[in-house]
Amino acid sequence: MSLVVQKFGGTSVADADRIRAVADHVARTRRSGHEVVVVVSAMGKTTDQLIRLAADVSTVQPTREVDMLLSAGERITMSLLCMALADLGVEATSYTGSQAGIITDAVHTKAKIVEIRADRLRATLGGGGVPVVAGFQGMSVERDITTLGRGGSDTTAVALAAVLAAEVCEIYTDVTGVFSADPRIVPEARRLARISYEEMLEIAASGGRVLSLRSVEFARNHHVPLHVRSAFTWEPGTWVDEEDATMEQAVVTAVTHDASEAKVTVIGVPDRPGLAARLFRSLAERNVNVDMIVQNTSVHGTTDISFTVPGYDLAVSTEVCEGLVTELGAAGVTSDADVARVSLVGAGMKTHPGVTALTFETLAALGINIEMISTSSIRISCMVRAAAAEDAVRALHAAFELA
Amino acid sequence: MSLVVQKFGGTSVADADRIRAVADHVARTRRSGHEVVVVVSAMGKTTDQLIRLAADVSTVQPTREVDMLLSAGERITMSLLCMALADLGVEATSYTGSQAGIITDAVHTKAKIVEIRADRLRATLGGGGVPVVAGFQGMSVERDITTLGRGGSDTTAVALAAVLAAEVCEIYTDVTGVFSADPRIVPEARRLARISYEEMLEIAASGGRVLSLRSVEFARNHHVPLHVRSAFTWEPGTWVDEEDATMEQAVVTAVTHDASEAKVTVIGVPDRPGLAARLFRSLAERNVNVDMIVQNTSVHGTTDISFTVPGYDLAVSTEVCEGLVTELGAAGVTSDADVARVSLVGAGMKTHPGVTALTFETLAALGINIEMISTSSIRISCMVRAAAAEDAVRALHAAFELA
Repeated sequence: MSLVVQKFGGTSVADADRIRAVADHVARTRRSGHEVVVVVSAMGKTTDQLIRLAADVSTVQPTREVDMLLSAGERITMSLLCMALADLGVEATSYTGSQAGIITDAVHTKAKIVEIRADRLRATLGGGGVPVVAGFQGMSVERDITTLGRGGSDTTAVALAAVLAAEVCEIYTDVTGVFSADPRIVPEARRLARISYEEMLEIAASGGRVLSLRSVEFARNHHVPLHVRSAFTWEPGTWVDEEDATMEQAVVTAVTHDASEAKVTVIGVPDRPGLAARLFRSLAERNVNVDMIVQNTSVHGTTDISFTVPGYDLAVSTEVCEGLVTELGAAGVTSDADVARVSLVGAGMKTHPGVTALTFETLAALGINIEMISTSSIRISCMVRAAAAEDAVRALHAAFELA
Repeated sequence: MSLVVQKFGGTSVADADRIRAVADHVARTRRSGHEVVVVVSAMGKTTDQLIRLAADVSTVQPTREVDMLLSAGERITMSLLCMALADLGVEATSYTGSQAGIITDAVHTKAKIVEIRADRLRATLGGGGVPVVAGFQGMSVERDITTLGRGGSDTTAVALAAVLAAEVCEIYTDVTGVFSADPRIVPEARRLARISYEEMLEIAASGGRVLSLRSVEFARNHHVPLHVRSAFTWEPGTWVDEEDATMEQAVVTAVTHDASEAKVTVIGVPDRPGLAARLFRSLAERNVNVDMIVQNTSVHGTTDISFTVPGYDLAVSTEVCEGLVTELGAAGVTSDADVARVSLVGAGMKTHPGVTALTFETLAALGINIEMISTSSIRISCMVRAAAAEDAVRALHAAFELA
């Protein structure tokens, strides 16, 4: 009897009707002969409502108390789901992160799992029951409630799947899988039946919002097959698994975009060793997550250093750079939030050198200027004007025949 | 530095404004030099909303999951209150029932506290902080979340006050204290400055809704002085403490009433030993809480047995009695929900024999028939028609000069 972990996000359990629909699906899976562990998020907009309430009450929000507050959300979902399962004759038992043995470090609001003591879940499974676990939360080594940050429920599900050696971790969401591009922008975008962890990582990192980067990394590191699918249509979705060397690989799998980045340029930096290191060390110390970096060839002994950061890090990045202008001997700092990143992802790129050329030709034909470029072995990202991003996505999707 | 436990009920923490007002009061108490432990209930109608949601989701509600669901309420209040206290510069740390070391038996939805391991609360107090504890909840010896039933937050507060040897347990609520009668019925009712545990127990048992019977029993058994007061006006309220032999005792302290009782009569029961025992054993087995019992003098070898029960137990009581009619050889069963109990409570009754006479005279003067009577050493209760109850309360309040 194989074990399946099923994770349901906020929209999948948004109200009483949805919770009953999810219970029905879990009951079917159980009756088809699988062991099932369920992981749930807070219902719909519960987390947003709690955050608003906190803002109404106080301007000071100790992160320990934020975690305590937010962890109320999943326990509502999980106890309701257990009741709905009881209604269908399925024995289910809810477990908080702490009860499920999810031990984390003590970094509140973005804790990392350090250990899982899954004895109680194993006991429930052994007795034929369905454990329903609160996603997103754990207990720190100091016995405080912690939360795992953005995408935390996915991380909980993948971690439990790894520890319990599940056959698959099913991530139920409000879309039917991972697409070759955002279907709102490219109507002919295709649902991908199967992609590798590496491709999913690049897609998640470059703007795909279906799975968090962290949960995919965890799945890859622990060899947990993921199945991303819809909790509304219940149809098969996208499998994320090891790269399969026997299959012919598509050169390009997906086109993604991300309009939330911003660009910072430090102008006229003297071309001396160590100055760039000084700059990026200062940014790292303020926890700024720098993505692309471009340094022009030195002209007359100075150069311009440009880099991109998430939009929410723009203010602090500009502040850091301006504080360094004198020390670096630079001429000044400019910033630009009006940019977007367009990326091509595909495991086959590694062996097909023509991708870059076709990308440039496609964008040039539309008159779109590429302001910055970065690549990995299976990804090409181009920074373009924000207004041109959707045209670029559509053109690249067509040029690489992804429909 | 003396320790004060402050408990705030649902209406006292119903919204963001109220939570800030409570934080302000706690901060003042702390700054006046007291150590403070705070116990909170769920905000306003949160518990009712969660119960409604459960009913929408399922007809089957395993009590373990009901406890998990309801325990979400207090953790929202307590984390918000800690944030509001942080805003005022007071260091506060929230603790769930489990974290506060409140260990209970495993009887879900009405668990009893078996032990309190208050190490974490003591550590927080020792560090100068204010522990904010979730009322109403604990962790069972089987490591499941439990709730303490009706009035459970009061019980949490009193139990913590006992274990931490607090100087006083302050119960903040939406009324200004305990009154000589319900002020909605008797406008001239007086707030009682000080009453004994025994009087408070009789008041709670006979219809006063300010404190739960269980929390008062706990306070009496552990010698915890209670101070019932308003979280809206913050004025001093009613102290509940040991009976003070040096003070002259009022003969009657308060008049209470309870319209939620119902009367059941088993007619024509043969006058043989053991039949009444059989009847009340059967009721006890169904967890029916019988209050007054009256058995008429036997006439022609049969008697009528009447008793009162809470209104919500009427259906099951009638069912039990009707099931026993044949076995007992009785003539039949009647029931009557249209009754109310009016009670006089006063520690001085013990030494003043005239109370019963004046009670009967007062009701007789109004033409009110007394259908059943029960007494303790400090209470007289009369069952009357429901429609006559308020007149009876007003007349007795005046006759005993309680205004």
